[in-house]
Amino acid sequence: MIKKVDHIAIAVKDIDEEIKRYRDVMGLKFLGTEVVEEQKVKVAFFEIGDIMIELTCPTSDDSPISKFIEKKGGGIHHIAYETDNVIEQIADFEKKGVIMLNKEPKKGAHNAKIAFAHPKSFAGVLVELKEKA
Amino acid sequence: MIKKVDHIAIAVKDIDEEIKRYRDVMGLKFLGTEVVEEQKVKVAFFEIGDIMIELTCPTSDDSPISKFIEKKGGGIHHIAYETDNVIEQIADFEKKGVIMLNKEPKKGAHNAKIAFAHPKSFAGVLVELKEKA
Repeated sequence: MIKKVDHIAIAVKDIDEEIKRYRDVMGLKFLGTEVVEEQKVKVAFFEIGDIMIELTCPTSDDSPISKFIEKKGGGIHHIAYETDNVIEQIADFEKKGVIMLNKEPKKGAHNAKIAFAHPKSFAGVLVELKEKA
Repeated sequence: MIKKVDHIAIAVKDIDEEIKRYRDVMGLKFLGTEVVEEQKVKVAFFEIGDIMIELTCPTSDDSPISKFIEKKGGGIHHIAYETDNVIEQIADFEKKGVIMLNKEPKKGAHNAKIAFAHPKSFAGVLVELKEKA
């Protein structure tokens, strides 16, 4: 079951510059950064209400985020929804015709179990399922 | 001051089709639809945690959403942040160098006062400020 929006992920070229912007201009609470080796990204999290804004920046030219920035110049990359059981949610989505990009969970930031659904299945929006560690 | 994310807006071609998807597949709580004459859109709201997902569909070929769908095929259009005073927030943003697309508030869905900031000012993300009616 989908519980809530966990975070909105925004692809950025210069993470230090954008951290300043979201912290000092937008005034959001900065929670810190983390390098996610499996996704080849450095991420920065901000808290706002009961969700987070995640800035995500490629650490390598072959990161999926590099391709996105090359093509679109940055912007919103995906919406992550929290679920209590990612394996059950993948099965439920597939039963309802959703195209899953990951049929098995992968490891995300904060050791969460994550899986992505194809943007075609949600009106052009890349959807991440996230089960907290 | 920015209080929280109010909603994430997703531009869609076929709002009835996507309402079904977000309600029946994603399992979100459907709150209803509204036509916003000033923006030339029909919107559908879903509740999830303390934010909303807004599906937004053009009601006319000269709607700003029509151009977005033509160019990008749909997807996330903007993030709306709730503020207690949109006029003060516009002034604060401008003082900090944000490019405002609306220097005066306009009328949005649910009679809210809204104003948009240029995507260049927030890493390629179109930002809406919203003061509830």
